[in-house]
Amino acid sequence: MRIDIISAVPKLLTGPLENSIVNRAKERGLVEIFIHDLRDFTEDKHNKIDDYPYGGDAGMVLTPQPIFSCIEHLTSERKYDEIIFTAPDGEQFNQSEANRLSLKENVMILCGHYKGIDQRVRDVLITKEYTIGDYVLSGGELPAMVITDALVRLIPNVIGDAGSALSDSFQNGLLEAPVYTRPAEFKGLEVPKILCSGDHKKIEAWKTEQSLKRTKERRKDLYEKFKKDY
Amino acid sequence: MRIDIISAVPKLLTGPLENSIVNRAKERGLVEIFIHDLRDFTEDKHNKIDDYPYGGDAGMVLTPQPIFSCIEHLTSERKYDEIIFTAPDGEQFNQSEANRLSLKENVMILCGHYKGIDQRVRDVLITKEYTIGDYVLSGGELPAMVITDALVRLIPNVIGDAGSALSDSFQNGLLEAPVYTRPAEFKGLEVPKILCSGDHKKIEAWKTEQSLKRTKERRKDLYEKFKKDY
Repeated sequence: MRIDIISAVPKLLTGPLENSIVNRAKERGLVEIFIHDLRDFTEDKHNKIDDYPYGGDAGMVLTPQPIFSCIEHLTSERKYDEIIFTAPDGEQFNQSEANRLSLKENVMILCGHYKGIDQRVRDVLITKEYTIGDYVLSGGELPAMVITDALVRLIPNVIGDAGSALSDSFQNGLLEAPVYTRPAEFKGLEVPKILCSGDHKKIEAWKTEQSLKRTKERRKDLYEKFKKDY
Repeated sequence: MRIDIISAVPKLLTGPLENSIVNRAKERGLVEIFIHDLRDFTEDKHNKIDDYPYGGDAGMVLTPQPIFSCIEHLTSERKYDEIIFTAPDGEQFNQSEANRLSLKENVMILCGHYKGIDQRVRDVLITKEYTIGDYVLSGGELPAMVITDALVRLIPNVIGDAGSALSDSFQNGLLEAPVYTRPAEFKGLEVPKILCSGDHKKIEAWKTEQSLKRTKERRKDLYEKFKKDY
């Protein structure tokens, strides 16, 4: 899989893309990630990529020209399965969208910044708009890294133990049961006895029960959906 | 405001915390961010901070000792308004939680990693559990940076133009109207004429109408809530 990320502030796109699971996937040749600096595509003589919004709003808006030039350059070289824009008013990104995207070949993500991007870019070039949640961030870079991380870890062979990804929260529509590790007692706090019992049938039943209980307590919406679907 | 972030993979916590708005807030003394490496707190002779989960699950779980040591060290030095853990089964983080947190003095964020953390940590030390959305990530570092970014930009004087944050999506319960910038025509695509009219009353009416329309089309849930509240 190839992921192209376009940004006005590419320095933000480090850390999570250069370490841990995403980096391991890159090293093994399972994903290629390319960062594009919008400033490399501006035709403005002062190198500008933003301007005041029409209608007297506060904040700055990314101008259409550098974005059109960058995206048109990329799409002239290969076909993209999806050209994503991250914005608070996009469709809710979730695990099933991550599953869907993890099967694609070429994905492009355009990060908004400042007050946003010119609406004409969204109307003409973007094939999918995602929000990662109902909060406002200073740019689309964190959402782009969130989307990248969520889908890269689903690419086959990226996570060593495939069972680990499959037992994640949301994959079966329920939240995960609590997890415990050694020591069995810490500061007087004990691990539930059943988990140390070695009785795998009982342990599985306990996990399912805990998973249902936690989902019912914390996420009525997921619980109702689960009951309807199963 | 002071934010302490505890992580098993602190290298992930770069980029967004060292550039752009968060960095500007740090430089102006409006926020202090401290990163703590869990490995500095382990008493294990092999420097281990994780172990196999009880009950035979796949994946690794962060052990309680380094987390207890780190959090107890920090809370012995100052009072924390909130000790946050980021997890897919937490409460939905949203703009009103960002507003609430932006008024606090000391906030701690513990990042999960691998398969999660020992449940005893969550039971005893954590005061708030957030998910940033219904998808699974490889660790809590991206969520910690998302939460940090969302609340830092709300601290007074962090964003130059306070009007910009106030007119954001979600602040009035609605999605924002489309934004446009120069040029008025680009590749045959025109900015809506009303925005270039200079008639501010009409422009405001158009924005409100667009904002309502976009919310109704894209987020029925927010639209229904808005109609009920106003």
